[in-house]
Amino acid sequence: MKVSIIGATGYTGEELLRILANHPQAEIVHITSESQTGTAIQSIYPHITGFYDKTLESMKDLDKLADSDVAFIALPHGHAMEAGKRLSAQGVKIIDLGADYRFRDVGVYEQWYKVPHTHPEANAVYGLTELNRDAVKEATIVGNPGCYTTASILALAPLVSCQLIELHTIIVDAKSGVSGAGRSLSLGSHFTEVFENLKAYNIAGHRHTPEIEQALSLLAGEPVILSFTPHLVPMARGILSTCYASLKAGVTASQVDEAFQSLYQEEYFIRLLGRGGYPSTKQTRGSNFCDLGWHIDSRTNRVIVVSAIDNLVKGAAGQAVQNLNVMFGLEERTGLEQAPLYP
Amino acid sequence: MKVSIIGATGYTGEELLRILANHPQAEIVHITSESQTGTAIQSIYPHITGFYDKTLESMKDLDKLADSDVAFIALPHGHAMEAGKRLSAQGVKIIDLGADYRFRDVGVYEQWYKVPHTHPEANAVYGLTELNRDAVKEATIVGNPGCYTTASILALAPLVSCQLIELHTIIVDAKSGVSGAGRSLSLGSHFTEVFENLKAYNIAGHRHTPEIEQALSLLAGEPVILSFTPHLVPMARGILSTCYASLKAGVTASQVDEAFQSLYQEEYFIRLLGRGGYPSTKQTRGSNFCDLGWHIDSRTNRVIVVSAIDNLVKGAAGQAVQNLNVMFGLEERTGLEQAPLYP
Amino acid sequence: MKVSIIGATGYTGEELLRILANHPQAEIVHITSESQTGTAIQSIYPHITGFYDKTLESMKDLDKLADSDVAFIALPHGHAMEAGKRLSAQGVKIIDLGADYRFRDVGVYEQWYKVPHTHPEANAVYGLTELNRDAVKEATIVGNPGCYTTASILALAPLVSCQLIELHTIIVDAKSGVSGAGRSLSLGSHFTEVFENLKAYNIAGHRHTPEIEQALSLLAGEPVILSFTPHLVPMARGILSTCYASLKAGVTASQVDEAFQSLYQEEYFIRLLGRGGYPSTKQTRGSNFCDLGWHIDSRTNRVIVVSAIDNLVKGAAGQAVQNLNVMFGLEERTGLEQAPLYP
Amino acid sequence: MKVSIIGATGYTGEELLRILANHPQAEIVHITSESQTGTAIQSIYPHITGFYDKTLESMKDLDKLADSDVAFIALPHGHAMEAGKRLSAQGVKIIDLGADYRFRDVGVYEQWYKVPHTHPEANAVYGLTELNRDAVKEATIVGNPGCYTTASILALAPLVSCQLIELHTIIVDAKSGVSGAGRSLSLGSHFTEVFENLKAYNIAGHRHTPEIEQALSLLAGEPVILSFTPHLVPMARGILSTCYASLKAGVTASQVDEAFQSLYQEEYFIRLLGRGGYPSTKQTRGSNFCDLGWHIDSRTNRVIVVSAIDNLVKGAAGQAVQNLNVMFGLEERTGLEQAPLYP
Repeated sequence: MKVSIIGATGYTGEELLRILANHPQAEIVHITSESQTGTAIQSIYPHITGFYDKTLESMKDLDKLADSDVAFIALPHGHAMEAGKRLSAQGVKIIDLGADYRFRDVGVYEQWYKVPHTHPEANAVYGLTELNRDAVKEATIVGNPGCYTTASILALAPLVSCQLIELHTIIVDAKSGVSGAGRSLSLGSHFTEVFENLKAYNIAGHRHTPEIEQALSLLAGEPVILSFTPHLVPMARGILSTCYASLKAGVTASQVDEAFQSLYQEEYFIRLLGRGGYPSTKQTRGSNFCDLGWHIDSRTNRVIVVSAIDNLVKGAAGQAVQNLNVMFGLEERTGLEQAPLYP
Repeated sequence: MKVSIIGATGYTGEELLRILANHPQAEIVHITSESQTGTAIQSIYPHITGFYDKTLESMKDLDKLADSDVAFIALPHGHAMEAGKRLSAQGVKIIDLGADYRFRDVGVYEQWYKVPHTHPEANAVYGLTELNRDAVKEATIVGNPGCYTTASILALAPLVSCQLIELHTIIVDAKSGVSGAGRSLSLGSHFTEVFENLKAYNIAGHRHTPEIEQALSLLAGEPVILSFTPHLVPMARGILSTCYASLKAGVTASQVDEAFQSLYQEEYFIRLLGRGGYPSTKQTRGSNFCDLGWHIDSRTNRVIVVSAIDNLVKGAAGQAVQNLNVMFGLEERTGLEQAPLYP
Repeated sequence: MKVSIIGATGYTGEELLRILANHPQAEIVHITSESQTGTAIQSIYPHITGFYDKTLESMKDLDKLADSDVAFIALPHGHAMEAGKRLSAQGVKIIDLGADYRFRDVGVYEQWYKVPHTHPEANAVYGLTELNRDAVKEATIVGNPGCYTTASILALAPLVSCQLIELHTIIVDAKSGVSGAGRSLSLGSHFTEVFENLKAYNIAGHRHTPEIEQALSLLAGEPVILSFTPHLVPMARGILSTCYASLKAGVTASQVDEAFQSLYQEEYFIRLLGRGGYPSTKQTRGSNFCDLGWHIDSRTNRVIVVSAIDNLVKGAAGQAVQNLNVMFGLEERTGLEQAPLYP
Repeated sequence: MKVSIIGATGYTGEELLRILANHPQAEIVHITSESQTGTAIQSIYPHITGFYDKTLESMKDLDKLADSDVAFIALPHGHAMEAGKRLSAQGVKIIDLGADYRFRDVGVYEQWYKVPHTHPEANAVYGLTELNRDAVKEATIVGNPGCYTTASILALAPLVSCQLIELHTIIVDAKSGVSGAGRSLSLGSHFTEVFENLKAYNIAGHRHTPEIEQALSLLAGEPVILSFTPHLVPMARGILSTCYASLKAGVTASQVDEAFQSLYQEEYFIRLLGRGGYPSTKQTRGSNFCDLGWHIDSRTNRVIVVSAIDNLVKGAAGQAVQNLNVMFGLEERTGLEQAPLYP
């Protein structure tokens, strides 16, 4: 399987390289970067010295990449559509780790991301593998989910699809490590500013909001509007999503348990810690797992679901490789079986 | 002013020592520890070498402490009542940093803390200074608020007292640094376990829940029941509390702004970052400030308030000193004017 | 290959489990813990949920472990000798991750570790694989090196074996993450104490000193005595060892380069960053690599070598698995090929 | 005392503001920034909201600052000389926190800093207060020492001035938190890169080397050349300096003790932890203390001194204020008496 990575120098690109280094079927044929064309990848990421002997190419001559079976695109939003259009036309399957192919309604994309969608006919599949596996199998273009969204949708999907909660009461309070902000320099990612510091940001305006709503609305069969609050936590990796909703009248704890069991019991990458369980981000670090625990607050009749993932793995590159495996008929775990790095 | 600290070796006791080292009116007369009686305090906390030349005494001979004007008690819950009773009977004013004197209804205390209350006649005043200043002035026993509770009550008080929110929709998602768990050894505070890790704990069962509810119920004039979720964040100091509630129909953003302004504009220790403002814990580190920002999520008609404090200062020792100043007629900022330690 | 782990609940035991989960030839047959006998391992380490379905046994009935081909011992020093003696007599190969089998001269062991050596006839091989591979191949008992020692010996071996430095001038200034102190609770590993803190400890008295000296003395053909200073750094994993020595008169930079090249150029797990190179601990995190860079301080005629490892991998469990592979004739990298977890 | 700060938006400028907020005699009259002229300082540093109501001015119109009694300059090296020259000519005392006024021999400055010195006639005094107090009293221009240099010189001064060590054997292995790298954005200060990471940098080439050598040479009465290695530690504040030297033949431990006692026993800001003592950076965080401990390695006849400071306080702004106090005849501790922020 010939694999290219478009935009290989950001953290998602790097994480793809790390994971694919142990993938028995993937051969990296091209890696690209516009800002560092011509540079050897190990001079940018010395930790993978010995795993690759590759030099970054430009994506300007896109046709050179047409010898790939699949291309991962790890570019800022708005920049994947041209490559997606051109390469998919040449038979290259596309897994985009940005936002460009995540929305069914391109109007929603354009409203939240403030750029025109230039590839509305793409017929892309939303790559939250556990919820969309059959479609991913047939897909030629996959929009790989966001990090917050993966953690939040997986937490809420059982409750929404089993109709156990009042949809208008959903609140997602999510917390992320700093790698989620990428490798671009900014004061908000400057060590001395972030260290021993904690804050919320983009309240009621974060772009992962409509993505979570889209997935839950599909499961609910009706529009879901929710509140989503992201926070920046002084750690490199990990997302913890704490999700609140009011139970519908008469819903029992067993029904809640049952909802999680029935949806996820066969899923390798979903680990159910059960009612009363407490996921923690480091329990998933470096792995593709999503750990889930849920709680009933009987005093307020709310259910509170907590999910933990590694934002760069299940929240980005790992799920992308999971989708790759599904798209190419491989065992879904291929290259993704390493245990979390704890402690 | 002769000051004693009962239980001086925990982090709250230590923080009292740190703050009082720069308090011009406070003279430390006794410091106690049962486990380390006879030890010089600077051998336990070398950072205060040069500030104190004091040795830890036992509190067994309580009467020795009766030469104090005021005693801070920084003991685990259940252990303050005996000292509180005996010393207040001898004219010593009491500021308890634990939970024993925080509840008007001792039944609530006994239900959540699982110990009998042996000093129900104490007539203690709840020491959230900004909301209770007049009572604190006259108090002989002050129950100093918890850390999570201080951050959460200050965030919600304007909305509740101005009747702008649906009380049954309140959710508090709070995050704390590890010093909040104290200095006692536990796997949950072991560096290697906590580092680059994030988790929730005690969902729907944390003991600060009824304390927040008590304060808000008094402001509301009716019972408030809410969901409270604490999280452990890999940093030493700081609490960030993210509070959600649905606005009552017709409430405007200006009314929300007005509620914060009118309650807090004269308060030195409350810094209003305004609508759209983002408090962060490090902006308050080492200081007695509580920073507040609020947001309207117009898509869901919720208000989201974020508060940040240093859990050991405004969340414990700092507010205790603030109460001390109020009780003894001093300028409320005395000893508390140092700027936050940033970065 | 049937593998047992004696002492599976400490961080080195856990790390063996993590690594062996991806080792194609190793089958775990027994894991032991005296304090938690009967407990399922995933209830202690939830991150490996799904990888093992094993319960901790006691090592009291040692003969039960005799069905193993090899036993890793991850116990505090002084506790491996009984199991080592009994099991090796029954044909079980032993890899001890503690100090009991590291010293050729048991007198040195007894002097620094203050316990009698009860298995002096063991004929154990010191398992610093790169320097001792042939002996490890034939070994029945391997004393796996310490974490600081691995980093320090690998840094200095080329210079010592090529006789480029004045042996009496060697100084090793080493820095470790907190996982090196293990999982036992102590104030020195309490999050709030360690966070944003840095200190040296055990100056001129750390037990890894004679171990480094033993290895370098063998390479030098004469006794080496050096100064070793460990430091505790606020991170979970990683050791950086900064090693100083005066160059012998007339030694050139090229000779230094040559010494590193000739000793290590064929070594997969040693990555040479070259003269002027700067290893960093996170570049090796989660992997079995040792990264090396060296510098000539021409103003003082010193050479300064910096090495970086993951203390739990190349400094403990990884090197133990490397030795396992060598002892059983497997490809040395088996189970150890995953790329470092960066960032 | 009218005080201006030229370059108020970097971390040293900010730290001056933090400290001077509690200085009873200092009134801030001007603060400058070229990149953010016209901005209110609290919009850049919200943590000092409420302490200052000042707007950043440009330093282009230098004469406006001539109404100051003293100006702190916190600019990158090479940029202080013009202001220093102009303002000192108008009677404004100068305390420069950069390197421009630190060297007696401007040739050394020009060689290491690669810029011409345009104010060689300045007659500046090196502001390591404890070693140079009398000269500071009379100074009109003070070159405030570097952070690494303060920690390292204070550690070695007793040994050098009492002639107890072989000067050519001195090695300084120093470790710093990330705030030492300033607030300018760089990949080397990007949170995700630095977190759980440790590395050395600028080996044998760091610009603090000649500054340490200058101070020690003056004390020794002969040239001192040493090896200096800085490391970057994943924390915001703090420097730990571990200093090695061979004792001269016959020097006893008591002589070493005596050297520290005699030089420092009257010094408020130097805290002697004694022989066998272990300073740690957090014990000094936020304070102007330098903690010192020393050790004799009798196996190698070396002395090892460890010093800890807060790089932004005793290593920069705190010592600058200490010098201010000395220059203006104030009690040296004024504004610097707050206890370290621990934990």
